[in-house]
Amino acid sequence: MGRLAYVNGRYVPHGHAMVHIEDRGYQFADGVYEVVPVVDGVLIDEEQHLDRLGYSLAELRIDWPVRRAALKLILRELMARNGLRRGIIYFQVTRGVAPRDHKFPCAAKSALVITTKRLSPPSAAMIQDGVAVSTQPDIRWARRDIKSISLLPNILAKQAAVEAKAFEAWLVKADGIVTEGSSTNAWIVTKAGEVVTHARNHDILGGVTRQALLELVTSAGIKLVERSFTVTEAFAASEAFLTSSSAFIVPVTRIDGKAVGNGKPGPITQKLREIYVEGVDRQIRAAS
Amino acid sequence: MGRLAYVNGRYVPHGHAMVHIEDRGYQFADGVYEVVPVVDGVLIDEEQHLDRLGYSLAELRIDWPVRRAALKLILRELMARNGLRRGIIYFQVTRGVAPRDHKFPCAAKSALVITTKRLSPPSAAMIQDGVAVSTQPDIRWARRDIKSISLLPNILAKQAAVEAKAFEAWLVKADGIVTEGSSTNAWIVTKAGEVVTHARNHDILGGVTRQALLELVTSAGIKLVERSFTVTEAFAASEAFLTSSSAFIVPVTRIDGKAVGNGKPGPITQKLREIYVEGVDRQIRAAS
Repeated sequence: MGRLAYVNGRYVPHGHAMVHIEDRGYQFADGVYEVVPVVDGVLIDEEQHLDRLGYSLAELRIDWPVRRAALKLILRELMARNGLRRGIIYFQVTRGVAPRDHKFPCAAKSALVITTKRLSPPSAAMIQDGVAVSTQPDIRWARRDIKSISLLPNILAKQAAVEAKAFEAWLVKADGIVTEGSSTNAWIVTKAGEVVTHARNHDILGGVTRQALLELVTSAGIKLVERSFTVTEAFAASEAFLTSSSAFIVPVTRIDGKAVGNGKPGPITQKLREIYVEGVDRQIRAAS
Repeated sequence: MGRLAYVNGRYVPHGHAMVHIEDRGYQFADGVYEVVPVVDGVLIDEEQHLDRLGYSLAELRIDWPVRRAALKLILRELMARNGLRRGIIYFQVTRGVAPRDHKFPCAAKSALVITTKRLSPPSAAMIQDGVAVSTQPDIRWARRDIKSISLLPNILAKQAAVEAKAFEAWLVKADGIVTEGSSTNAWIVTKAGEVVTHARNHDILGGVTRQALLELVTSAGIKLVERSFTVTEAFAASEAFLTSSSAFIVPVTRIDGKAVGNGKPGPITQKLREIYVEGVDRQIRAAS
């Protein structure tokens, strides 16, 4: 039996998982999504992801496709059928199928699509050596706090970064401020030892791993500042890193080809990664 | 036989027209579209729409799904099968199906989906009385010149306008400049008799009807200015109207509840609509 996907109430072979061409997700990017990491068969930070899904849906006035408790059961059922122990589970909710018209349809039913993917943790090399990022203009819309599927600017930035031999794009506003990555949050550690990331507002997505780390950092006694930082500050930083649900915390050792600090992952980044991984381990133990 | 849609090489019943859940149009809004009006069985301004499709595809580095000449044949075949004489033909091209990853896939094949819809011309009442528009913040991304399916901000603006009892939203930047409508171009006629619409740049879509009208207006000897105008100027205008491929030219007689000029469609708007409809008639005669 090959991999299954969940599509609007049915578990179907991945290759035959289809939606209608007038699903508003396909014609209008009228939907939202979440990606939840799975470690040892446990959904990490699941409640936070579901909270954020609820936020995105509410901001766009899209109904939950099923109740929250039902969604949790479906996620587990698909994981079980696919034997997923380590990887990610992706779920997407759109406003549903309706004849093409910009305004909200009166009678559409929210669509729900779920897939799983096996995924290894970031390689040891990636953690030991860090990754490169490439700065790209942040040309997105004004509501990056909504985790929408309207991702065209994100993919263009990611592609430009890949072509610049970088792992990720760091998006920069006209005023020089780094907002976040194309699918990750951006952090620096200043020479004064402050751990800095963009404050949560409409300019960035409230990353779940970002938020979890903020809470852990505080309790670890490391000095933390939620504020904007510029590309110039990033170039002058002693350390840099990115956070995401699938990769947790990855050191950034080059920005636009320039070494960050001494060009190696820094001690604070390594410490934070250890703290975060311990938090994940606690969740796994609590679930078993 | 019910209505058919064209999906990646096949003519299928509309209700069964499906695409894969990992079509990048569904997960990333990674695609573009066109809507061509059909009058008396003739595709109006077809070449201009295909030129713009080519521009959008090139800007996103998406391959044509079929050659231009083949696309023209497919459009006609679907129209014939559906007996479409008056309405619109909608076609959408995405980067195709690939495992979800922000960066461009190496091997995906562009997807092509086409639908037709019967549509009456704008009602006599709409032309005689004009329509209301509601100003809404323009929160879109920085590349509105690409006719992408990344339309989430457009539908939110349209919905807000509908809830404000208006026919369309006029999108306004932070500096007060009106860029365009959610799916139409915006025009005013100043008290000095200038016909004004936003200049073509990355802030607006280069509307086909907009461009056709610009050329007709010039030859009709009416004074035309392609420049930005503000909401304040729009309130003070003697006339206002909108252009779109499906509705051609529609008078705007109220902006945010305030009457434009004397609250009735103005003579220049009416003259322009006549000129445009004559141009459409010429295309129909030339095709038959």
